Amino acid sequence: MKIGIIGATGYGGLELLRLLHNHPEVEQIDLFTSSDEGKSFSYKFPHTTNLYDQPLLKIDHDQLKSYDVLFASTPAGVTSRLLPPLIGKGPKLIDLSGDFRLKDTTEYERWYKKTAAPTEAIEQSAYGLTEWNSQEIRNTQLIANPGCYPTAVLLSLLPLIKEKLIDATALIIDAKSGVSGAGNTPGPMTHFSETNENLTIYKIHEHQHIPEIEQGIELFGAQKTPVTFTTHLIPMTRGIMATSYAPITSGVTEEQLVNCLKETYAGRPFVRIMNESTEFCTKQVAGSNYCDIHVKVDPRTNRATIISVIDNLVKGAAGQAVQNMNVQFGLDETTGLTQVPLFI
Amino acid sequence: MKIGIIGATGYGGLELLRLLHNHPEVEQIDLFTSSDEGKSFSYKFPHTTNLYDQPLLKIDHDQLKSYDVLFASTPAGVTSRLLPPLIGKGPKLIDLSGDFRLKDTTEYERWYKKTAAPTEAIEQSAYGLTEWNSQEIRNTQLIANPGCYPTAVLLSLLPLIKEKLIDATALIIDAKSGVSGAGNTPGPMTHFSETNENLTIYKIHEHQHIPEIEQGIELFGAQKTPVTFTTHLIPMTRGIMATSYAPITSGVTEEQLVNCLKETYAGRPFVRIMNESTEFCTKQVAGSNYCDIHVKVDPRTNRATIISVIDNLVKGAAGQAVQNMNVQFGLDETTGLTQVPLFI
Amino acid sequence: MKIGIIGATGYGGLELLRLLHNHPEVEQIDLFTSSDEGKSFSYKFPHTTNLYDQPLLKIDHDQLKSYDVLFASTPAGVTSRLLPPLIGKGPKLIDLSGDFRLKDTTEYERWYKKTAAPTEAIEQSAYGLTEWNSQEIRNTQLIANPGCYPTAVLLSLLPLIKEKLIDATALIIDAKSGVSGAGNTPGPMTHFSETNENLTIYKIHEHQHIPEIEQGIELFGAQKTPVTFTTHLIPMTRGIMATSYAPITSGVTEEQLVNCLKETYAGRPFVRIMNESTEFCTKQVAGSNYCDIHVKVDPRTNRATIISVIDNLVKGAAGQAVQNMNVQFGLDETTGLTQVPLFI
Amino acid sequence: MKIGIIGATGYGGLELLRLLHNHPEVEQIDLFTSSDEGKSFSYKFPHTTNLYDQPLLKIDHDQLKSYDVLFASTPAGVTSRLLPPLIGKGPKLIDLSGDFRLKDTTEYERWYKKTAAPTEAIEQSAYGLTEWNSQEIRNTQLIANPGCYPTAVLLSLLPLIKEKLIDATALIIDAKSGVSGAGNTPGPMTHFSETNENLTIYKIHEHQHIPEIEQGIELFGAQKTPVTFTTHLIPMTRGIMATSYAPITSGVTEEQLVNCLKETYAGRPFVRIMNESTEFCTKQVAGSNYCDIHVKVDPRTNRATIISVIDNLVKGAAGQAVQNMNVQFGLDETTGLTQVPLFI
Repeated sequence: MKIGIIGATGYGGLELLRLLHNHPEVEQIDLFTSSDEGKSFSYKFPHTTNLYDQPLLKIDHDQLKSYDVLFASTPAGVTSRLLPPLIGKGPKLIDLSGDFRLKDTTEYERWYKKTAAPTEAIEQSAYGLTEWNSQEIRNTQLIANPGCYPTAVLLSLLPLIKEKLIDATALIIDAKSGVSGAGNTPGPMTHFSETNENLTIYKIHEHQHIPEIEQGIELFGAQKTPVTFTTHLIPMTRGIMATSYAPITSGVTEEQLVNCLKETYAGRPFVRIMNESTEFCTKQVAGSNYCDIHVKVDPRTNRATIISVIDNLVKGAAGQAVQNMNVQFGLDETTGLTQVPLFI
Repeated sequence: MKIGIIGATGYGGLELLRLLHNHPEVEQIDLFTSSDEGKSFSYKFPHTTNLYDQPLLKIDHDQLKSYDVLFASTPAGVTSRLLPPLIGKGPKLIDLSGDFRLKDTTEYERWYKKTAAPTEAIEQSAYGLTEWNSQEIRNTQLIANPGCYPTAVLLSLLPLIKEKLIDATALIIDAKSGVSGAGNTPGPMTHFSETNENLTIYKIHEHQHIPEIEQGIELFGAQKTPVTFTTHLIPMTRGIMATSYAPITSGVTEEQLVNCLKETYAGRPFVRIMNESTEFCTKQVAGSNYCDIHVKVDPRTNRATIISVIDNLVKGAAGQAVQNMNVQFGLDETTGLTQVPLFI
Repeated sequence: MKIGIIGATGYGGLELLRLLHNHPEVEQIDLFTSSDEGKSFSYKFPHTTNLYDQPLLKIDHDQLKSYDVLFASTPAGVTSRLLPPLIGKGPKLIDLSGDFRLKDTTEYERWYKKTAAPTEAIEQSAYGLTEWNSQEIRNTQLIANPGCYPTAVLLSLLPLIKEKLIDATALIIDAKSGVSGAGNTPGPMTHFSETNENLTIYKIHEHQHIPEIEQGIELFGAQKTPVTFTTHLIPMTRGIMATSYAPITSGVTEEQLVNCLKETYAGRPFVRIMNESTEFCTKQVAGSNYCDIHVKVDPRTNRATIISVIDNLVKGAAGQAVQNMNVQFGLDETTGLTQVPLFI
Repeated sequence: MKIGIIGATGYGGLELLRLLHNHPEVEQIDLFTSSDEGKSFSYKFPHTTNLYDQPLLKIDHDQLKSYDVLFASTPAGVTSRLLPPLIGKGPKLIDLSGDFRLKDTTEYERWYKKTAAPTEAIEQSAYGLTEWNSQEIRNTQLIANPGCYPTAVLLSLLPLIKEKLIDATALIIDAKSGVSGAGNTPGPMTHFSETNENLTIYKIHEHQHIPEIEQGIELFGAQKTPVTFTTHLIPMTRGIMATSYAPITSGVTEEQLVNCLKETYAGRPFVRIMNESTEFCTKQVAGSNYCDIHVKVDPRTNRATIISVIDNLVKGAAGQAVQNMNVQFGLDETTGLTQVPLFI
């Protein structure tokens, strides 16, 4: 397969490169950028010396058509214009930005404060939450790869909501992310001396992943309901933990919740239900495509605490994108994604 | 004032020393320990060289009686035996452990899994949440200094619960702490290579600060109600953030919540209501005795998100202890506690 | 005393504020800036809420004249123009930038790549390495406060060089700094996701502190000699360690080196000779004005390893500046600088 | 290939597992331990759930004989007894501890303060610095895998010493390591709250890697000479940087140094000579088997600064061990080791 990565110099692009480099079906990776074209990729990223010394390429519509797969890892508002003209042309399109995720363009414009992609393009796209939408993913050209937070949240909550084991109308989701989620553009929120040894809550009730979570609940689980969702910046580079709270349906036990999760994900290689441990952490999935889930019922309050962890750059971005590519091409879902987590 | 610190080699003890060192009313600080007696304090803690070269002293009941104030910063289960014989003797007693915090000894024994302190001693003690209990604090010999998490949680929630602006029966509290809260005994949960670049949820629904929070709500605010409370370990040394969620009472506005907090804490030097910022972080109180509070109402869900931050070793331990000492001695509450936060 | 801080929004300015806030002789602190004038200081820096809500002031020559002391903490190339017109006017001037440090303007222009300050102004200034130049500091209006690296290096090496106990012509200095030394302007070198979990060597042989170290050796110790000096960026916020290597003079013992250091700094409150420990670290001085020094002779190589640690923002910047102010005003050197290091 | 890992629960063992998991020639990995036998590996290390749920095995001499390769990653003093009886038996033996590295048993006992391995076993072993000793490695049963520091130091210095381009008699090596090098046993030096935001120099002139470096210089390069070598603990998990300083031979240029390195390592896939950048960091090799080298001559001092970086757990331990296994079995050196560095 001949691959093009658009936005290769961002963290999503770098992580795609890391994963695709050892993917057995990938023969060639070309790297596209809107700003450093002509520069050697490894000059900009010395860690790729000897591996990707090739020049960064200018984004060119005609050239793009010649790839088997195009991954786009660009800021919001770029692919809504860039990808629609490629629909119906050769390459499979996997968009890691938010531009095609929301089916409702009004919602997109409200939360992203940008012009939405054309409705027809959105309609032809599939939401790429692999474990829940593989049929559509297999049959579409254009995949809207999910956001990092929605991936962690939806994988852990959808089974319980769908089976009505928890009360989705009272959902509280307290999410925490490593700093790489903010990308590689320097700014005050990512300045080492102010981020290190610090914990910040940001975009309270205003994060653009809120409508994506609510849409996911509606698409795959139950009635639409507004959720409370907050995001915290953790002084680490990789990792997301979503801690969700909901009342359990009367009479439901912890065992039922665990079994529901286990049954839903039986045979799915990247979701692990981890209910043995008393501690549960992001490092147990670092560098890997796993989503690990843990659930505890508090008999004192009749509420469940449901926790999920992912590597925001892997299952939350590039890894799920490669998983979706595998599905599109009929490959084993795990191809190129068999890394053991980097616990250390 | 002549001060004794019992358990001087733990983090609580070290922080007491840091704060008391520049307290204008303190003339002498003696350092007691149960394990390294006779060793020079600065040999064990080189950062105190030239300041505290004196030997660590053996804990001795007769000697302890001669101090004006004794601070105890020991593991659970020590002061329940050590302090009661000093009641009625000379020194003011400020206990940073959990041994006198819970009025209900059954609750103590259930959550701490240790024998509780004698009931009479507990009855004579005052719960040292300074901003809410200064009358009792002023009139007691023995202060049960609050836990780090309960301090952050109660200061932010009590005014809103008391005024019935939020629904305390549906409280969800998602708390996050730096690693220093675990003390200075090495172990797997505090081993650098596994704590760094990692985020861990621990003691889910089982933290011993849960009954202390519930008791605080009952003591100062409203009817007792079980709360959902979880704790996360953040890869930083100092700082606690408590993010709490509750439905707002019908018709209540964000402005009302902010005003309630502002009115409650008007004239209280260490509580700041910070509703201007869009970001809110633990570093804004680091090294200081401040508790900063931020509140946002989500009109989509009619829930409030209430956030408070403290330095777990200062307002969450040694700082509040010194503040309580000031109250006991009729000094200005801020004496020795005027440090500007170490934002960098 | 009425104090003005020019460049109050940088890290040097913030740290001056933190230290001067509790200085017993300081009555008023005004905050000057070149970019955010009119804004409330605490709006920009919420950690100072209730403490410094005052507006940032525009830098104005006439107004500046009315202060007792002006501290300038600005980028290179600013004070070389700003301060000379104030010479002979009222305020004592303490410049934390590099503009007046190098006596040789050619050297300044070569290493800083900026126009040097006027020669007469430089001649009237004193190099503010307090322990070595207090006579000049006391008698001057304008102090060139030393760089962070030169402070750590010179304090540890000057006694040994002056007494010819080590061979200064073969000096190798391997220095390491926390990230706060790079200031508060975001950029790739200080972007969290690339600085965290990383160790970088930078400006190899090209750091502008090299001529300052060489000048210091000449001013206070011995013949000028070029030194090898490299700098490494450590994934922490505060702290500098300088590890220096030099052949010992034939027959000299470790004891002689230690004694030479102890004698030189006898009675100097901020320099501690720490030869007992087998480990030696930056945290033992964090937040304080100490410079701790450790020396070991390797009998296998007849070389000495001399290590010194400071907090780059305190003894390496704002702390030494306050110490110099104290000397200028005939106060006890330690006034306002008695913080116990923040080991935790 | 059927692999056994002895000491599987240490960091060396975990990293071997991570790398061997995707090695195409590996069919089975059994995990041996001296302390947790019978426990499920993934119960102890949840990140390996579904991958290594198998029980930890007791170390048993007869069973060990049946493997194709045995890796031992145990503390010093274990393999000196455990491996000699396996010499002449079936499995290739790759020892990651220091027990067979030093040819001179007196040196071993002096620096390690343990009884040395039997001389005959040491004589039959090959020092596993792959790029310098592949002939011996190919022909031996027992490989003494190099220490992390010596790997970084020797790869960067040997070419220059051998060609007499630098003066090895005046070598100063200032090394820095992430905390994972200290292994997974908790202790004060690795306790998060004291290691985070801290920089420590330790074992000054006394590190047991000193004789290994000196032996390496003698084995592959030049006359034995004592070196000055110090080690610093960096608040990060992975990575080593060795910054070495030496006078250059009269008339030698930076270009000659670079060319010497490039020629020595032409065709060696894991050593990269990186002289373009002005910054140089450990993250450019993180998670990979690369050793990157950078060299700069200072014309002011006629000294060279030679810097090398490795991931201490990969090229400094498990990665080089796998590389050596590849050489022993006549596989391509890079088999299983083609990971792109984890720059983020």
